[in-house]
Parts: sequence; C-alpha cells; structure tokens
Amino acid sequence: MKPRVAIVAPGAMGSAIGRRLDEHGLQVLTSLTGRSDASVERARAAGMHHRTDAELAHADLFLSIVPPAEAEPVARHYAALFRDAGRSPVYVDCNAVSPRTVGRIAAIVHGSGAAFVDGGIIGGPPKPGQPGPVLYCSGPAAGAVEALGRAGLRVRVLPADVGAASALKMSYAGITKGLTALAATMLLAATRNGAAAALHAELAESQPHLLTQFRRAVPDMFGKAYRWVAEMHEIADFLEQDGAGSDVYRRFGDVYETLAAAQRDQGDSIAQLRAFFDQEPPKA
Amino acid sequence: MKPRVAIVAPGAMGSAIGRRLDEHGLQVLTSLTGRSDASVERARAAGMHHRTDAELAHADLFLSIVPPAEAEPVARHYAALFRDAGRSPVYVDCNAVSPRTVGRIAAIVHGSGAAFVDGGIIGGPPKPGQPGPVLYCSGPAAGAVEALGRAGLRVRVLPADVGAASALKMSYAGITKGLTALAATMLLAATRNGAAAALHAELAESQPHLLTQFRRAVPDMFGKAYRWVAEMHEIADFLEQDGAGSDVYRRFGDVYETLAAAQRDQGDSIAQLRAFFDQEPPKA
Repeated sequence: MKPRVAIVAPGAMGSAIGRRLDEHGLQVLTSLTGRSDASVERARAAGMHHRTDAELAHADLFLSIVPPAEAEPVARHYAALFRDAGRSPVYVDCNAVSPRTVGRIAAIVHGSGAAFVDGGIIGGPPKPGQPGPVLYCSGPAAGAVEALGRAGLRVRVLPADVGAASALKMSYAGITKGLTALAATMLLAATRNGAAAALHAELAESQPHLLTQFRRAVPDMFGKAYRWVAEMHEIADFLEQDGAGSDVYRRFGDVYETLAAAQRDQGDSIAQLRAFFDQEPPKA
Repeated sequence: MKPRVAIVAPGAMGSAIGRRLDEHGLQVLTSLTGRSDASVERARAAGMHHRTDAELAHADLFLSIVPPAEAEPVARHYAALFRDAGRSPVYVDCNAVSPRTVGRIAAIVHGSGAAFVDGGIIGGPPKPGQPGPVLYCSGPAAGAVEALGRAGLRVRVLPADVGAASALKMSYAGITKGLTALAATMLLAATRNGAAAALHAELAESQPHLLTQFRRAVPDMFGKAYRWVAEMHEIADFLEQDGAGSDVYRRFGDVYETLAAAQRDQGDSIAQLRAFFDQEPPKA
C-alpha cells in the first residue's frame, strides 16, 4: 500500500517534496486554508490536494516542514486534531530544530497516541532532474519513512534514537551556515578597512575552494537570512553544554538578522558583499 | 647595499624567516639574551647572529615577529633603545594584531624617530624548497621591505596606509581560524550527540573540500590553540564596529583556550576530534 502523505506547510521545501512524491504516484495532502495566493498556486502546481486541517489526520505519514520557530506550535495544533479524530499518522518532524526542541515535540506527538520520527533535511528543495536533499530520520518509528525512499526522495534512517537526525542537521548547518556568517562578517570588515582587493586575491591564491564556496553561498543567503535567525538560535540551544559555542551561534543569529534587514532595506552591506565578488580575479 | 635585518624574536616563524634571509646572503641579527637553550640552538642553526638588544638598533630593518600580546610591549622596549642609540631602523610590525593596535605601535615607533611599516604574515613558516608565507606590508615606508623580496621572502606591498596589511591579516585569519573553531565546536557537538559517523559521511559526500580542510587544519591547531587565543581577541578588536562579529571572535578565544587546556591535560575533546577523522570513509 502506498502511504498517503500530509505535508505542512507547502512552502518552498514542502511543495518541492510534495511534487517529487506526487510524480512518483503518492497522494500528497496539505491544508491551504489561510495560505497566500502564491502558496495555493505553488501547492496546486505541485499536485498537492487540499484538505482541512482535521482531514490531514487521516494521512498515513505527516511531514512537518516549517520554519524552526513554528515546529513546536504546529505539533501542538495537529496533535490535538489527531486526538479529536482518533487517528494516528506517523508524525515526522523534518525541521532544523535542536534535539531538546525535538524531545518536546516528540512528547506532544506521543501524547496524541501517534508515532514520532525525528527528521532532518540536508540540501535544498528537490529540482527536476536532480537527486534532491537527503531526509535523515532517527527513532524507533523511522522505518515508516522508508516508503518515501521508494517514491523519489532520498531517505536515510540513522540507527539511533530520536534526537540523532536533528543533531546531524544542527552540526551540519552549524558548519555550513556558520561559515557563511563568518565569511559575510569578514568580507565586510575587510571592505570597511580597505583590504577587500587584497583579501580577494589572497583567497583566490591560497583558499580557492573557500572563495568558490563563498561566491555561491553568500549571495544565495541574502534572501534566506531572515529564516536562518531562528535556526542559529536552535544551534545555540543544541550547544547548551558548550557556553562559548552557544554564544557564538546566538550572535550569528544577530549577524543574520542584520543582513536580513539590509536585504529588506537595500542596505550598504548587501551591495558591499556583491561588490566583493565582482572583483576581477587577479592576473596569474 | 644589502640591509642588515634584526628579527625579534627567533621563534618558529622568526627563525625560519631568518634562515631564509641568511641563505640569500643577508646578515640576520637577533637577541638571544634570556632565551631558552632550544631557541638559542634554533637561532644559531638558522644562521642568526646574537647581538644585545641595544645593538639591534644598528640594523637597517627591524622585524617584530612575536605573539600578538607582546607586539606592543616589544615596540615600547625597542623604541626606547632606538632613541638612546640615536638610530632609526625601519620597524616592521609583522604581527597578527588589529589595525587599532597597529596604530598605537606606529605612534610608539614614530616617537623614537624610526619609520614604521605595517606588516602581516599569511602562511606558515618557510620550509626548504617551498615558497613560504607572504609578508604583506602597507604604509608610506613599506617600500623598504622590498629588499627582503630580493632575498627569498615573498613580500607584497599594498598600495594603502598603515592598517591595511593588518586588516588583511585579521580578515584572512578570521576566516581560516574562525572556520577551524567552528569545525572543532561542531564535530565535538555531533560526537556528544551520537551523530559523528553520519556527519562524517554527509561531509564526505556534500562538502568534501571542507572535510579535507578540517582533516588537516583541526589536528594542526591543537598545539597552536594557546597562541590563537590572543589573536582571536585582536580580531574581536578589529570588528569593533560590528558588535555581533566582535562577540563571536571573543568567544572563539574561549573555544581555543578550552582546546589548549585539553591539549595540555590530555582532555577528552582532543581524543574525540582525532577519533572523528579516524572514521572509515563511507563505502561508495
């Protein structure tokens, strides 16, 4: 039996995953109540079917794919509906949240009688012709997600308890998004201090892989910085036993908040970062 | 005329640069007073000649190559000797210090009547058969350092004022050493949370260049972490206009202090980081 899959919400990642599953013959449900016209159009284009929130309780697998700050409220909302409906889909939290947050979400979901899977998505939304991101899963019920691995998604079940998939996501995002925050901080500081050209040339010579990564990742971040603020806070929470590391990521949240404001208000820092990458490569 | 070059102190970098200059026919002077037997032996093996502190004032170029916290006291000490001796070598501060610290050092040196050059070294100590690090220089007197570029050192004069070479060093070190601090923080957090194997496999697949860089840079840092604490504080000072960035590097100073203590006391974190890189690469 092919599982019926509910995806909340049909954002960029949720609808791209919905489309991938639809293309592989699964019925994909979502709630479009209160969503913007753009979201409704995106969900329909992805082949997703509208159901009321209460009707989503009748799915077999329920994927929560929302911004980190919404992960816990969404779980609370749907757990109550599952209880009312007397239905128990397997609930997969796919969000960039700390193992501690996941523990609270698991307790909420278990309280409704539903099984819980810890999930973490590494990589961007799937695009046609590309393999797409990996959905890592952990916890005793994780095997239920393997059905999606037969429907076009890359699914990897970690042989570990609830918390491991989120720990992987936090540590991976901590490296990649932390590095992007460092890069933005330092390229701007070099620019303020008249060292942008020399830094560009030195990176091109001695750290070409990093320069290539920055050239892609920094401008790609501008439109996402507002979403990464809460994710940095989750990483700070993940590092609770490491006071220094925790503070670093709390402050990266502020770095991304400042960059998000600059992106919104067409601030100087966005133009300065673009200008950094527009420099001529040095003559060989 | 070949310049006589004084180098203070004959540490790992200072003596390796001394050796390179000696091999190219320059007379290289240093003070061995109060240095350990190991330093004396290293300096002599590098062909450096002992002079008293006061006699070093008679050099043509004076290179300060010391840990960041010593850069200003060293300048104060030698500026007084230059004044007493009525001599003015060109003083090159080659240290990993902020432009603000460099400004104070420049004022001290100018007070003795000597010319000042802002320098910054990018790369490790020169080794036989390798080109070695680049000594970046800025400021109106920087041209004097080009003589070392004809004596086996890679010297690049930036067309900019005092402060630019240090700003370049700070922003470059902020990226490379900041990334190493991030990596150590996140590899340890993944290990504590049972996600080390999955993180290793995911990095090998989607960030192979970063994993390669970490495999080299993280263990290479263990023995240097104690020296990087003050450098992180200089980078925090460099970022004074950026409160979030400044806090990040202050906390990286704490990260390196903790790692230095673990290295000294054979703490768990060093063993855990080594174990991370000892993991089998995943099967293709």
